[in-house]
Amino acid sequence: MTEEIVVIPGDGIGKEVVPAAVSVLEAVGDFEFVEADAGDAVKEETGEALPEETYELAASADATLFGAAGETAADVILPLRTAVDSFVNVRPAKAYPGVDALRPETDLVFLRENTEGVYSGHEDRLSEDLSTLTRVVTTSASERLAEFACDYVADREYDGFSVAHKANVMRETDGRFRDAVVSVAEDRGVETDEVLMDAFATRVCLDPTQFDVVVCPNLAGDVLSDLAAGLVGGLGLLPSANIGPERALFEPVHGTAPDIAGEGVANPSATIVSAAMLLEYLGYDGEGRRVRDAVEGVLADGPRTPDLGGDASTEDVTNAVLDRLD
Amino acid sequence: MTEEIVVIPGDGIGKEVVPAAVSVLEAVGDFEFVEADAGDAVKEETGEALPEETYELAASADATLFGAAGETAADVILPLRTAVDSFVNVRPAKAYPGVDALRPETDLVFLRENTEGVYSGHEDRLSEDLSTLTRVVTTSASERLAEFACDYVADREYDGFSVAHKANVMRETDGRFRDAVVSVAEDRGVETDEVLMDAFATRVCLDPTQFDVVVCPNLAGDVLSDLAAGLVGGLGLLPSANIGPERALFEPVHGTAPDIAGEGVANPSATIVSAAMLLEYLGYDGEGRRVRDAVEGVLADGPRTPDLGGDASTEDVTNAVLDRLD
Ligand SMILES: CC(C)[C@H](C(=O)O)[C@@H](O)C(=O)O
Ligand SMILES: CC(C)[C@H](C(=O)O)[C@@H](O)C(=O)O
Repeated sequence: MTEEIVVIPGDGIGKEVVPAAVSVLEAVGDFEFVEADAGDAVKEETGEALPEETYELAASADATLFGAAGETAADVILPLRTAVDSFVNVRPAKAYPGVDALRPETDLVFLRENTEGVYSGHEDRLSEDLSTLTRVVTTSASERLAEFACDYVADREYDGFSVAHKANVMRETDGRFRDAVVSVAEDRGVETDEVLMDAFATRVCLDPTQFDVVVCPNLAGDVLSDLAAGLVGGLGLLPSANIGPERALFEPVHGTAPDIAGEGVANPSATIVSAAMLLEYLGYDGEGRRVRDAVEGVLADGPRTPDLGGDASTEDVTNAVLDRLD
Repeated sequence: MTEEIVVIPGDGIGKEVVPAAVSVLEAVGDFEFVEADAGDAVKEETGEALPEETYELAASADATLFGAAGETAADVILPLRTAVDSFVNVRPAKAYPGVDALRPETDLVFLRENTEGVYSGHEDRLSEDLSTLTRVVTTSASERLAEFACDYVADREYDGFSVAHKANVMRETDGRFRDAVVSVAEDRGVETDEVLMDAFATRVCLDPTQFDVVVCPNLAGDVLSDLAAGLVGGLGLLPSANIGPERALFEPVHGTAPDIAGEGVANPSATIVSAAMLLEYLGYDGEGRRVRDAVEGVLADGPRTPDLGGDASTEDVTNAVLDRLD
């Protein structure tokens, strides 16, 4: 293991949880870490939330681990997703034993399209009164996502996946998305079912076990995965992976948590599980599994940070994870 | 009371719940009802899901009560919303005593922009690979919604309202929406707070009492109100009102429920509460209140339809509501 991993703590609790995850990565492997800046603080100093150098590092590293950015979140994370050419954002939302959850039976994975939809960046101010945004959907991006989804469910022995969309209103664009995804799945012999994104929002609350893997356009994936976070007890536990053809970017779904930043009590679990996804992405499946098991053990038995009702520090939790890795 | 009310049962359980609500309206007032067709069945006969005649009736009546449409839902409801020139869709999502709810403390009202956003209808197939949708946001529509929201919270003595949007990504369009709404509220001395729509999805699950009235763009309102439906126990209980400057359209948020259609066991509550909103819209506040109280009483004490764990029929529930109105 001598892969280069770029590490971008960012702002707020990013500076606490990323070092925690790095110490876990160090415990199971021998990587070369390169630290880089991004976020509100660097913007204040340099005028740029995402320095060119950071972008270039992410664009050439094997993998990048990002923490969180504050006000500048969109200016940092959207270009970073582009830097690694990521076409899918993998967002597992799973309730853990020992953690209070509104729906403890939740175990979902969102595969979110990561390049287009309303994230296209094309907006125009056409008059004093009127602005427009051009929502973009291509068959090629939808098919690439669908191929990934088919591999994903095959590797993990799921029966198939659901496609969440709003093609009853966005007939041409989400119709294109749905048709492309379903047709790839048919060719690959993977079962799919369809659900309108609004109906998904109701149904997942009533019974999250109706769904396993959910493939969706960019904004639908953003909102529906955050909804699932609400069912499992908050954003604090959700990891994510932005996967491209040659490199990838891993990040907890949570933000900078300004209310507790600097106190050393941030929950590092989401970032450590994101690091487990990074290990698996690089082919270290055994190590990834060990890290996940360690985090799950600590979530079940403690110690716990205040967000989970405990009074442990980030360091206590990290040390407990490290102990379980020995 | 001699207002003309157009009644469009539509398909499936629409044909069961709309007559139930009409019998309640008859019990408290003296309206002129005009029945009209729309939906899958009429499309099969005539080729048109929304006959011109139905559109014209809705466009000239004082108020319209719509049930549900099947496959053709979007072809029916979107033009009907236009027919009454409705600029806001009022969607209360409230848990009722006696009804199983994931979050029994939920009591929210969504004020959904009803004319633009991704519902603009402008989609183009630009190449074999690429389609676009033009998302439209105007200051004028946003301000009109905000004026309504200010009146709404003042009439009901709320402290203010929340604005849910995704202006960190859709900077120009949702930025315009947010700025217009917040600026009207400031002029009117109404307090607002802002929440990103994805963060709203998490936070409303964790604690719905953080929010009261939520003002949002069209698709955000669609998805977030359906999410709230999941927190209160399903779509079966959500009423809605599409309000225009001179007329309005009332509809339960649920669909045609093909699995139980024709069996006479559909829950008429959402449609009856939609009829209560209709009464209030026409100025019959006392009658609206009486109908709401009657429905709440029946939800608390029964009889209950199978969706709520009972074995009563639509007729049993309707009669119980009528009894309480005496
Ligand atoms: C910060 C923001 C641009 C981002 C997004 O919308 O993708 C965030 O909500 C997320 O989901 O990672
Ligand atoms: C049927 C569909 C077009 C409609 C919408 O998206 O508005 C429905 O979901 C609703 O919320 O009333």
